[in-house]
Amino acid sequence: MAMISPSRRVRRTPFSDGVEAAGVKGYTVYNRMLLPTVFESVEADYHHLKRAVQVWDVACERQVELRGPDAGRLMQMLTPRDLRGMLPGQCYYVPIVDETGGMLNDPVAVKLAEDRWWISIADSDLLLWVKGIANGYRLDVLVDEPDVSPLAVQGPKSDELMARVFGDRVRDVRFFRFGMFTFEGRDMAIARSGYSKQGGFEIYVDGGDIGMPLWNALMAAGEDLDVRAGCPNLIERIESGLLSYGNDMTEDNTPHECGLGKFCNTHTAIGCIGRDALLRVAKEGPVQQIRAIDIAGDAVPPCDRIWPCYADGKRVGQVTSAAWSPDFETNVAIGMVRLSHWAEGTRLEVETPNGMRPAMVRERFWN
Amino acid sequence: MAMISPSRRVRRTPFSDGVEAAGVKGYTVYNRMLLPTVFESVEADYHHLKRAVQVWDVACERQVELRGPDAGRLMQMLTPRDLRGMLPGQCYYVPIVDETGGMLNDPVAVKLAEDRWWISIADSDLLLWVKGIANGYRLDVLVDEPDVSPLAVQGPKSDELMARVFGDRVRDVRFFRFGMFTFEGRDMAIARSGYSKQGGFEIYVDGGDIGMPLWNALMAAGEDLDVRAGCPNLIERIESGLLSYGNDMTEDNTPHECGLGKFCNTHTAIGCIGRDALLRVAKEGPVQQIRAIDIAGDAVPPCDRIWPCYADGKRVGQVTSAAWSPDFETNVAIGMVRLSHWAEGTRLEVETPNGMRPAMVRERFWN
Repeated sequence: MAMISPSRRVRRTPFSDGVEAAGVKGYTVYNRMLLPTVFESVEADYHHLKRAVQVWDVACERQVELRGPDAGRLMQMLTPRDLRGMLPGQCYYVPIVDETGGMLNDPVAVKLAEDRWWISIADSDLLLWVKGIANGYRLDVLVDEPDVSPLAVQGPKSDELMARVFGDRVRDVRFFRFGMFTFEGRDMAIARSGYSKQGGFEIYVDGGDIGMPLWNALMAAGEDLDVRAGCPNLIERIESGLLSYGNDMTEDNTPHECGLGKFCNTHTAIGCIGRDALLRVAKEGPVQQIRAIDIAGDAVPPCDRIWPCYADGKRVGQVTSAAWSPDFETNVAIGMVRLSHWAEGTRLEVETPNGMRPAMVRERFWN
Repeated sequence: MAMISPSRRVRRTPFSDGVEAAGVKGYTVYNRMLLPTVFESVEADYHHLKRAVQVWDVACERQVELRGPDAGRLMQMLTPRDLRGMLPGQCYYVPIVDETGGMLNDPVAVKLAEDRWWISIADSDLLLWVKGIANGYRLDVLVDEPDVSPLAVQGPKSDELMARVFGDRVRDVRFFRFGMFTFEGRDMAIARSGYSKQGGFEIYVDGGDIGMPLWNALMAAGEDLDVRAGCPNLIERIESGLLSYGNDMTEDNTPHECGLGKFCNTHTAIGCIGRDALLRVAKEGPVQQIRAIDIAGDAVPPCDRIWPCYADGKRVGQVTSAAWSPDFETNVAIGMVRLSHWAEGTRLEVETPNGMRPAMVRERFWN
């Protein structure tokens, strides 16, 4: 592939100086912002993530902030997940859908207070959809993108590193909950969450100016833990079945197709914009669904476009993420497979750039 | 800078195979799609663009299509430009604003018919804003992104090349008008437009499958014209004063600040969502505005973040695009300067990564 060209439009983050000093080798662009993809190598980064602790610049997970008396009502209009039982201090993974039930984003909603929410977004300008809906329905709510940049700490030694910087109380934060902590006199929400299954936290860094001081403090405190700069790891996230919006699902897909039906309470999520369409989907069930797929043979190249899947010469699905897994010694992949062929153990053929490969549908992901 | 990592999320285009075969060296990501930035070198590409003809993969200028009885009404809600006199066959450059008059995009609107429009967008998911507004106001209109990918032919020999492929009638297409032409039995709209001031066309390629056949036909027909693969050129577009959304302006700016006041008919553009705010701006005038800025000294590095501008030690503006111009033998730049210092000839200091540089506000752009 080619180099990425610098411009203001592809935004730097509060942590970019640290990322560059750590020798970043690859980037992608996510929400019009730089997201590192490789430091040493994707494989070396993977092994290190599973054994030690990494600090990830995930500032590209921008926040859409909702503030005002209609914030809660607007939040429920955006998602088929029933939010009535959600308390301040909780984080919910929420599919966001349009009026036809098509996925517009798969963010994490952070409830700061009854009248204040952050939506920590995947890669689409969800801000524009939320602003358009708020405007069209004349809701009493302010919608904007605050100067808040998530910094993730991931890996088995995350608790130890975080406790050194934020105190032992951080160990008590439960999964998908957050607490308020202080760093150099500044308050920040810290959630037990992140885009890996190796454990860890996401720090919602409020104010770009405190970004590098925090980055440096984490690096200094974790020297003996072998802390390193890292990033969401392609291999680990496929092993863990963590979907990527824009890769594994798009606005063409319903949450049910993405295996996110459990986050759709279409009967009770009253006010959700896509509810009518999703009630229909929930009744009939999807005709295709996300599956873990094992691709035989040696390492496949990066999946930069749809790889069609066939059975008996007929197209029955597509692979959209794939990587060689050193730990499982196979090509781990995520794909969308039609109902007729999605059962565990079904044999497929996947059309990769290296030719047709035998593949098999698995019951579950690897991690 | 680092390499760009491949993934389906950063979409390839119908012309990517041609771009790669031509030896692309740099990419940016624009509307979540690959946009080439360099072939031979930015300088060599620049000289060639000004002397010959280039074929540009600008598929990333995605279309937002509006269809239905309320399409025209919705289009007028989006922009402060008065569209009442616009005829099918015309293209209008239209600032798109939110309810506070902040710029959400600066696309070209293409009027296909009274009830059918394309909005050929700059870098933001305008589709989501338009869908949100259409939904919130319950308009009778379909809004989606069709499989239409612009291919630009730019440079002084554009007319000659296009006539060889589409016939002499293409020479009669006037600036910012389009006509319907046929290639291999397929209809496509061709406009006299494009993101350079070297002349040329944009072909709205309808259906990705016809992309490479058209690319190859243009390359074959123009061999003796020295046709090459090209891309929007940083130097040429700054010389020409072509603004870049995300670089030179963002949602923080009004059209008036961007020098786009002439496209705002706020008194007559009845229905425009940001009209109240812009009537206020039109009355008082902006306090800062886009200017051409000449930066002294040798070549500056790429402008990947705001470069503050000072006068008498006080901050009075910012530069957001800059490049060394071989033809004008200076650093050409675009910036936003405060009212107190925007007059022609005003001397500034610009804080570049290579240190503070003397600079001067110019009356107009270079091309």
